[in-house]
Amino acid sequence: MPASEASAERPRADVVIEEIDGASSKEAFLSAPDKEIHGQFLHRVQQMLLDHAFQSTHRESKVTRYVDPDRLREIIDMNLRKEPASEEALLSYIRDTMKYSVKTGHPFFVNQLFSSLDPYALAGAWVTDSLNPSVYTYEVSPVLTLMEESVLKEMRSIVGWSDGDGIFAPGGSIANGYAISCARFHKIPDIKAKGLHGLPRLVLFTSEDAHYSIKKLAAFEGLGSDNVYPVKTDARGKMDVLHLRELVQRAKAEGAVPFMVSATSGTTVLGAFDPLEAIHEVCEEEGMWLHVDAAWGGGALVSKKYRHLLRGIEKADSVTWNPHKMLAAPQQCSTLLTKHKTILAECHSASAQYLFQKDKFYDTSFDTGDKHIQCGRRADVFKFWLMWKAKGTDGLEKHVNRVYENAEYFTEKIRRRPGFKLVLEEPECTNVTFWYVPPSIRGRDNEPEYNQKLHKVAPLIKERMTREGTMLMTYQPLKELPNFFRLVIQNSALTTSDMDYIVSEFERLGRNL
Amino acid sequence: MPASEASAERPRADVVIEEIDGASSKEAFLSAPDKEIHGQFLHRVQQMLLDHAFQSTHRESKVTRYVDPDRLREIIDMNLRKEPASEEALLSYIRDTMKYSVKTGHPFFVNQLFSSLDPYALAGAWVTDSLNPSVYTYEVSPVLTLMEESVLKEMRSIVGWSDGDGIFAPGGSIANGYAISCARFHKIPDIKAKGLHGLPRLVLFTSEDAHYSIKKLAAFEGLGSDNVYPVKTDARGKMDVLHLRELVQRAKAEGAVPFMVSATSGTTVLGAFDPLEAIHEVCEEEGMWLHVDAAWGGGALVSKKYRHLLRGIEKADSVTWNPHKMLAAPQQCSTLLTKHKTILAECHSASAQYLFQKDKFYDTSFDTGDKHIQCGRRADVFKFWLMWKAKGTDGLEKHVNRVYENAEYFTEKIRRRPGFKLVLEEPECTNVTFWYVPPSIRGRDNEPEYNQKLHKVAPLIKERMTREGTMLMTYQPLKELPNFFRLVIQNSALTTSDMDYIVSEFERLGRNL
Repeated sequence: MPASEASAERPRADVVIEEIDGASSKEAFLSAPDKEIHGQFLHRVQQMLLDHAFQSTHRESKVTRYVDPDRLREIIDMNLRKEPASEEALLSYIRDTMKYSVKTGHPFFVNQLFSSLDPYALAGAWVTDSLNPSVYTYEVSPVLTLMEESVLKEMRSIVGWSDGDGIFAPGGSIANGYAISCARFHKIPDIKAKGLHGLPRLVLFTSEDAHYSIKKLAAFEGLGSDNVYPVKTDARGKMDVLHLRELVQRAKAEGAVPFMVSATSGTTVLGAFDPLEAIHEVCEEEGMWLHVDAAWGGGALVSKKYRHLLRGIEKADSVTWNPHKMLAAPQQCSTLLTKHKTILAECHSASAQYLFQKDKFYDTSFDTGDKHIQCGRRADVFKFWLMWKAKGTDGLEKHVNRVYENAEYFTEKIRRRPGFKLVLEEPECTNVTFWYVPPSIRGRDNEPEYNQKLHKVAPLIKERMTREGTMLMTYQPLKELPNFFRLVIQNSALTTSDMDYIVSEFERLGRNL
Repeated sequence: MPASEASAERPRADVVIEEIDGASSKEAFLSAPDKEIHGQFLHRVQQMLLDHAFQSTHRESKVTRYVDPDRLREIIDMNLRKEPASEEALLSYIRDTMKYSVKTGHPFFVNQLFSSLDPYALAGAWVTDSLNPSVYTYEVSPVLTLMEESVLKEMRSIVGWSDGDGIFAPGGSIANGYAISCARFHKIPDIKAKGLHGLPRLVLFTSEDAHYSIKKLAAFEGLGSDNVYPVKTDARGKMDVLHLRELVQRAKAEGAVPFMVSATSGTTVLGAFDPLEAIHEVCEEEGMWLHVDAAWGGGALVSKKYRHLLRGIEKADSVTWNPHKMLAAPQQCSTLLTKHKTILAECHSASAQYLFQKDKFYDTSFDTGDKHIQCGRRADVFKFWLMWKAKGTDGLEKHVNRVYENAEYFTEKIRRRPGFKLVLEEPECTNVTFWYVPPSIRGRDNEPEYNQKLHKVAPLIKERMTREGTMLMTYQPLKELPNFFRLVIQNSALTTSDMDYIVSEFERLGRNL
């Protein structure tokens, strides 16, 4: 039966829209873009987007235009109303939303473990929105399913695995949660059906500098945050393997079952890389799953120069790696990779017959959704795939080398500069942590109130940079250390001149403190 | 200190880019869009997007161009390579990705509980991508934080609560997971730190027709899928409250602790609404948390005509409601709402000092990220907020009434039509489930092999519609019922003529079976 026969029967949009209740397609509640009605609106939005994309990354523009919440509610009418807004009003909401949002693609947005605005990735994100897909079956997302397969396979290959499995997750925290889920299922497969009830207490280990998601997800998954035993770190922020061994023995003596170590490659604050080979030895001896949270530091794997920092990662059972961090893909793009080929499906499948029908006409192994704890799932792959195509793996490597060069330049620059003090003398990642010591307390580090005074400096400088909009960089305390700043470089459009600017900006913001 | 002083010191992009190692900004690995270099590329992509948005929703175009995975890999070179691809190659990847992706905005994509392509929401999604935000602190996402507050407050108000809390979640499954997490924490706050170890067995109840995420998340959260007790449904697919009472007593007799009922408003297959008031009574008596999974049916709340279907929802403790389903926001836009003001934060917070500093200069109650199990989190709010502004709440109501009218029209049309048989005589939601009985077996329902034969019809028709690309509608079995089709209407651009088309298309596809 030719398809043309069907086409002949199809109602034409412009005719039928007006048939029903005298409604016209101009009605605001109809959800389908029409060239005549919405063409100009969408075109104007696109023009605003182009302007914004180019301007928001310019050094001459502000990183942020801070206003207090009450004032912001006056500027943008946040309330939702019964009546539709005009297109002019909508355009002004878009304009103001852009104006008062933080420019995360700006070179001086160095506040988080994500930043930058890659033009090819941005194009990929726009395309994804236009497709409005959900990735769970080949039938509904054929292209994106194969792209996920390709990206995850290539990432596993970079980790060092010729086989295995992987998934995209909505962020590194949930990717770490998947690892915990796989690890305990690997130990006790009955957990899926029976739960933790009646089992011995299960304990996992991670360093005290690890990301908070390990505790958060352990609580969410019913293990309890107390059953994440914090392993001490050494002076460089790396997991102390002797202490890990002690804690494992302690847990066993308590009658608990150690089942997992979550090592970190690139800790959130200091950028430390845990010693994976030594940790793997402990895991082997004790029958524990080795997970590596390389959400941040995983990017170094694409660089011949820096991948040694993750030596031994191929011995891990699972790896969290977020391309939206060091590789500068857009938020969000997170993966959980594992060398175990079937565990993600075994551990998480529910085999719902209304979505994963087995009597389809094609090979249903391409219906990958049942590995996930999400059902409907936004596609995070295309933007990254397109960016990877645009740069090539060589381009990703150059990108990583460049961000390292900038971080190293910055470190050297402040190493002996008056008023600056490094927290780590030799940072291993592209986070550089430091105190800015204002003139008023400089050289007084033997005085009793020094640390309290220094602790208050960072919030003050942060307030000034935020209100002026000249830069955004985060600060935090760490254990007994007073507040210090953390520069994070993952935007390769930055240059050594930008590093110079950041130094001088601290001196300007802090000089009268 | 005037900001202008700082500006003077800022390096100019066009100068500094060329300073470092002789690198030029043309290098593919630099992540910042430049008007001169990327302007034309991004502009061409935007033009393709406009064309795609307008064409892909036209009835004359195909819903899908199905090709097998091997063939698709020949058409699009999925592999990632060392070398960068040319811009022309990138544009052709985009073109082919659009061409071979399923047109989820097409009127005849009636396959899932999401569809359509709202032009204002699409604009909002594009804007979000350009901002590339992460929503966790006011400092980094001021505008989007206030928009989330506003949308969640308005949705709670529609549910019937004047107070409470809410969050955006990456899909309804994880929203349901949050509800389970809150429910058990509410019962036993110690669970967060101590976990389930040493506790009595905890049991939750949901109907056998509930979404599979309840079991999936119960397993993920360490409760075990066996501890989700399936409550029988009646002939209309609604939870049998007498059976619920029996199961609660059985669980107690077993020494287990019943802690939660997850009722459903709009089940996945049949679109049934559980009797919330009667279920609430049981929850009250037994001290159980009442969750309502209204991911799909929640949209009916905005309609004066249909909100009675969720009568009693204001008595619930928590509600999952996905605007990306019946309200036709883009994938993905899911919320978990609760009438308990502090539980989301108490249950999920980890108070990481490097993200949620308490010594900031502004009111840190606006740093809402610690309620979530995600850390970095994509903004799903703006597209929905902008769409809501564009339509007004009145427009949302008209939208819901329209999709109901179409579903009712379709139901009446097939009720007595030869070859069609309704699964539910009186569907309550906009899913209409039915068998198409081809001429060869029509009237033979007393013959022994009838059900087996009918079971095989749906996969065959599905294959034909997929290969021809004239429509996409899903089928599934349910308990002892053979495969049947499920029409889902949530695109208000559809008309009664489209309903006529769908009926005739079944007759065309199935007539020689």
